[in-house]
Amino acid sequence: MNKAEIEFWFEFASPYSYVAAERIEREATLGGIAVNWRSFLLGPIFSAQGWKDSPFNLYPAKGRYMWRDMERLCDKLALPFRRPSVFPRSGLLAARISCLESAQPWCPDFVRAVFRANFAEDRDVAAPEVISELLASLGLDAAILVARANSAESKEQLRRQTERAVQLGTFGAPAFFAGNEMFWGQDRLQDALLCSLGLIARP
Amino acid sequence: MNKAEIEFWFEFASPYSYVAAERIEREATLGGIAVNWRSFLLGPIFSAQGWKDSPFNLYPAKGRYMWRDMERLCDKLALPFRRPSVFPRSGLLAARISCLESAQPWCPDFVRAVFRANFAEDRDVAAPEVISELLASLGLDAAILVARANSAESKEQLRRQTERAVQLGTFGAPAFFAGNEMFWGQDRLQDALLCSLGLIARP
Repeated sequence: MNKAEIEFWFEFASPYSYVAAERIEREATLGGIAVNWRSFLLGPIFSAQGWKDSPFNLYPAKGRYMWRDMERLCDKLALPFRRPSVFPRSGLLAARISCLESAQPWCPDFVRAVFRANFAEDRDVAAPEVISELLASLGLDAAILVARANSAESKEQLRRQTERAVQLGTFGAPAFFAGNEMFWGQDRLQDALLCSLGLIARP
Repeated sequence: MNKAEIEFWFEFASPYSYVAAERIEREATLGGIAVNWRSFLLGPIFSAQGWKDSPFNLYPAKGRYMWRDMERLCDKLALPFRRPSVFPRSGLLAARISCLESAQPWCPDFVRAVFRANFAEDRDVAAPEVISELLASLGLDAAILVARANSAESKEQLRRQTERAVQLGTFGAPAFFAGNEMFWGQDRLQDALLCSLGLIARP
């Protein structure tokens, strides 16, 4: 039998993607499930359905709820949280890096570091200097990685990965795939993990 | 100490409200928590944010996901499910009845019967004859109840209850309230129950 695996699709601007990024490795490891980290951009997906901003800004009742829910959820899960003073912040550079370097063993640590900087420390993760600092703090060569991420090939790779997200039926983040089954929202992580183990019925 | 309680806000056209209606009484009873059933209409709330139809119809990727998710979820929870051939179906009459009669001991049974007729039996719950049949099957006087539900007072009561939902910050269904804390989505039922018991931090 092949090792169970799950695809974790995340967007750096997405608050619930932060929660999922903090949860997934530990919970997947308990089930012996490998995690494939997949960064993508929600911007083009939202634009295509006529949204020029985050739905949490476009629909204020939804946004108010989400921020309160994030406070409660992070409190329950013992995750640090501070509401960012700017929302959403572009995760473009971070997404390019984590798309291009997704096979590197340090990549999950980098992803979590970016999420924490944004959602726990209110740092401007849209700024290349901040991303460089986070890379350096992981002992990596920030100059080389940022230059690689800004190459035409890297831009194309993230564009293709975002297109793949659309083709797979993604409409929000986080999304988990167990085979062809999509689960949307950090609330559904456990269901996605059960599905990857064959413990939730497939069609 | 007062008995713990939870408010359950539901819309008859909402698939996930069906799941919540099937789950809530048993799970609340395990915690000794009283459930207050609150029907309301999402139509006016969606209209106010520019939606003329269900978001599951307006955003096809979201809709495709939801129907597959409902299949999986009902399978997991051993709930009967058949995708309705018409979606959404108006729950106006059923909502008026369950708003006006919310204090009656048969009301939760009626609510579940309507949800099952729509989401497990593909029956046209927008039709007064179907609602009358469901009432009669519970041993109730359908003619009297439907007449009462169509009175001006009853219409006004559901209108006011929907306005209250808006004032409380509701933007979708199902929604649960533990005191002032709102939880949105059937996925969050357990969190709402924990909150009603004081086991999730309040501000």
